[in-house]
Amino acid sequence: MFESAEIGHKVSKAQYKEQVPVLRESLLEAQATLFAQKKLPVVVLISGEDGAGKRETISVLYEWMDPRYLSTLAFEEPTDEERERPAMWRYWRALPPKGRIGIFSGSWYSDPIRMRISGELSEMELDARAAQINRFETMLVNEGALVLKFWIHLTKEAQRARFEALESDPHTAWRVTPWHWQRLKTYDALHEVSSHLLRMTNTAAAPWVIVEGVDDRFRSLKVGQVLQAALAAKLAEKRHPTFPGAPMVRADTDGRNVLSAMDLSRKLPDKDYKAELGLLQGRLSELARDSRLAKRSVVVAFEGADAAGKGGAIRRVTAALDARQFQVIPVAAPTEEERAQPYLWRFWRHLPRKNHFAIFDRTWYGRVLVERVEGYCTPADWQRAYSEINDFEHELIESGTIVLKFWLQISQEEQLRRFKEREKIAFKRFKITEEDWRNREKWDAYQQALCDMVERTSTGDVPWTLVESNDKNFARVKILRTICERLEAALHESDKSFKAPKPPKSEQGKKSGKKKRGDKASGK
Amino acid sequence: MFESAEIGHKVSKAQYKEQVPVLRESLLEAQATLFAQKKLPVVVLISGEDGAGKRETISVLYEWMDPRYLSTLAFEEPTDEERERPAMWRYWRALPPKGRIGIFSGSWYSDPIRMRISGELSEMELDARAAQINRFETMLVNEGALVLKFWIHLTKEAQRARFEALESDPHTAWRVTPWHWQRLKTYDALHEVSSHLLRMTNTAAAPWVIVEGVDDRFRSLKVGQVLQAALAAKLAEKRHPTFPGAPMVRADTDGRNVLSAMDLSRKLPDKDYKAELGLLQGRLSELARDSRLAKRSVVVAFEGADAAGKGGAIRRVTAALDARQFQVIPVAAPTEEERAQPYLWRFWRHLPRKNHFAIFDRTWYGRVLVERVEGYCTPADWQRAYSEINDFEHELIESGTIVLKFWLQISQEEQLRRFKEREKIAFKRFKITEEDWRNREKWDAYQQALCDMVERTSTGDVPWTLVESNDKNFARVKILRTICERLEAALHESDKSFKAPKPPKSEQGKKSGKKKRGDKASGK
Repeated sequence: MFESAEIGHKVSKAQYKEQVPVLRESLLEAQATLFAQKKLPVVVLISGEDGAGKRETISVLYEWMDPRYLSTLAFEEPTDEERERPAMWRYWRALPPKGRIGIFSGSWYSDPIRMRISGELSEMELDARAAQINRFETMLVNEGALVLKFWIHLTKEAQRARFEALESDPHTAWRVTPWHWQRLKTYDALHEVSSHLLRMTNTAAAPWVIVEGVDDRFRSLKVGQVLQAALAAKLAEKRHPTFPGAPMVRADTDGRNVLSAMDLSRKLPDKDYKAELGLLQGRLSELARDSRLAKRSVVVAFEGADAAGKGGAIRRVTAALDARQFQVIPVAAPTEEERAQPYLWRFWRHLPRKNHFAIFDRTWYGRVLVERVEGYCTPADWQRAYSEINDFEHELIESGTIVLKFWLQISQEEQLRRFKEREKIAFKRFKITEEDWRNREKWDAYQQALCDMVERTSTGDVPWTLVESNDKNFARVKILRTICERLEAALHESDKSFKAPKPPKSEQGKKSGKKKRGDKASGK
Repeated sequence: MFESAEIGHKVSKAQYKEQVPVLRESLLEAQATLFAQKKLPVVVLISGEDGAGKRETISVLYEWMDPRYLSTLAFEEPTDEERERPAMWRYWRALPPKGRIGIFSGSWYSDPIRMRISGELSEMELDARAAQINRFETMLVNEGALVLKFWIHLTKEAQRARFEALESDPHTAWRVTPWHWQRLKTYDALHEVSSHLLRMTNTAAAPWVIVEGVDDRFRSLKVGQVLQAALAAKLAEKRHPTFPGAPMVRADTDGRNVLSAMDLSRKLPDKDYKAELGLLQGRLSELARDSRLAKRSVVVAFEGADAAGKGGAIRRVTAALDARQFQVIPVAAPTEEERAQPYLWRFWRHLPRKNHFAIFDRTWYGRVLVERVEGYCTPADWQRAYSEINDFEHELIESGTIVLKFWLQISQEEQLRRFKEREKIAFKRFKITEEDWRNREKWDAYQQALCDMVERTSTGDVPWTLVESNDKNFARVKILRTICERLEAALHESDKSFKAPKPPKSEQGKKSGKKKRGDKASGK
């Protein structure tokens, strides 16, 4: 892995003096184009052994480029707001928007490396982390980002020499601490872990660039040249190429699917509804105050056709909760700041803290529903979204979040009836728009997209609950009961096995019992 | 204050049943209009004695309105990210955007009340807080917000009765804790402090609405009615009225002002520049690592005419800092999310944590410079901005932030020379736009605005440093030297007297010695 960075690369003072002005000019030019076009973000990771010159490299980039469109993201101890969310949350919130360059000093690689060295992660667990990282970076690249990962390399001898040099200069002596000498002792372990992890994460989408750290001029020039060339190439790309995916086809052989198999005639009489609703709301209200929830958070996702009753169902859920404990997040068109980020960013930003509920009225599934059907994104975009969404939900689960998702299904006739009714009632009129009428025309395409969605994203940990919603009473009670049951099961499990914040891969075996609940996806 | 809420208000079940559907309809209608227009945010404070029904009131509002456009902001212990910023930061970041209603359960009143009861604040200090709150709320209202402050009131006897009732019902017994009975003991103190603070903050812009809390139906209906009526009235307003301000006039009697008095011929030869620059950068670099800075943060604001050299100056400052310790914030047109918030929100969001620098390239002074001169806001808007900005900077200072602001002044001739030069150099070409040429035509209007700005916002704690910038060497060295001197003085002061995070009003006396540094505003 590191061989090419142990051969004594060097750049003479004369060469440096000659090449830097040219490089600087093209870097500034590229940066100006990047900012003017605002088409893609640039993520630059500066990693490597301590003393290899990471800090100096970042300084040189600031010197050469326009610091107004650069930001450096340093990650040390997570803040309490970060600790209460999935591990990747802090990186998501630090992602640069389109048009800008974000330099990551410390990154999603730091924790896995540190934890593997200390023995907190097994080799298998490290590999699982590597796979997760690969999917994350591939997602960034698919979303248009340029991801550049630099590893600045020093041999053990060079590291020792570097520390000694820093220590002997009174201006830099402060930078060498006992912690640094300790690093030298763990050099071999770091070398082994990092070379393994680098190899595992050396993907076509985001390959590593290994840079020898010994010679300052070589290191600076090399990083600058790679950044400039990659940026220029990326800016010249017409459109990031679509990846070769399997064509998505369905054969509707017997006319049955998970949706058509639902019994939409299910009803709950008003009297039973009132009684059950009260009981379930009381039960939910107690669960929400359960002390075991202090270490968990809850995400409830609602999807459904227009007029399926999402709003009414959400209101019945929130009525059981303390308003200080939940947020309802209505998902509409993304804002300008959201459009400058990867698709899932606008959902990441709303993730709840521990002991809090986030209730999404429409969700990240918009990508594989409305955006797919209406053609708002390319087929490649929505086809890769299934696994991106599964990754997202998996990270939620891993961090101790309880995730529920509901699809509210109504028949076309019932939808028409509700549209007409809404037009009559004054205070419901604002709910119905031109678009609602237009969407009806695409009913079949939506049913197709829905079947794909359920098949590909109803997982053991996060099953879809399909809700027969022609009768509002029935739907609301089913939703509340499902929430209560899932919360009870999750809190019960908390007692036994849940170890926030990092249930490693081995946890998956234990959780497999939960797969039985996957049958909810069949709309029982 | 509370007399009108101790007379046994009551609403019968029949009245309630009759009035609620009507109220609900108009609330939903108003909410829909609010969301469709997206012209103003609604800030609703629900305060009052414990057990008075604050929580129940919020629940009722959720029941009656569309929960998707409501959010409840609860403030308990500040997080560490909040503790490292000015006290108001957590409220700024929770402000609802235009079109939405934010319900504050706990607010900027909670701390002052608590601290006055515990004796941490003197009565005079409480009054200072009240004045600060009044300015904050007036700013919100001037920015278009509807601010509704409810105080739900219970007499001591009613509070005792309420706790007893809650405790005797097994479903609500959990809500009464020893903490609550303790509240009863401090009732009188709370009553005294809150009635004083309420009186002090009962302004025309944001008056208090006192609501008797005993009868649930009365309380709910009253809050709903006031909210509905205020919302309807506000939505019907054509434009929030301009306040009657003193006309801003200047008489240019002897042709001299702080800008024309600057000696723009000041120069620093290259040789001296190189030597001084190195020394100052070294000094700054050491200051940035000073352990006393761990409790402080630094905000550096750069303003200047186009081509005055802000970018170059910033680069000389950042070169002395560790990239992980600072962010450069280039201020351009506000984003969509920023436009949906009060003017200063987009600066609040970038405030640095402790031990970090935020360097603003253009600043909150845009309001009184470009927005004033170009007519992007009304005269009323920029005229009130001076005191809003002073409040903002005062809050920064109070929280231990070191604030520096620089105006880079160049002559018209020098600007023209630089524009022409930029057009020639390839990698600087992107820096010059049509707008730059157009701005030159308004030179005089800008000089006028600048003089007003310096007069009104160069305060003892945060003086303007006017920088003679025709010679870049001179300007850069003056800026670096000023930063070093101010940091040294502030850190020295840290040793003696600075007590983060709440230096009360009494601190101001001690700080007056600093006013001597105000002479920097005269561009020495």
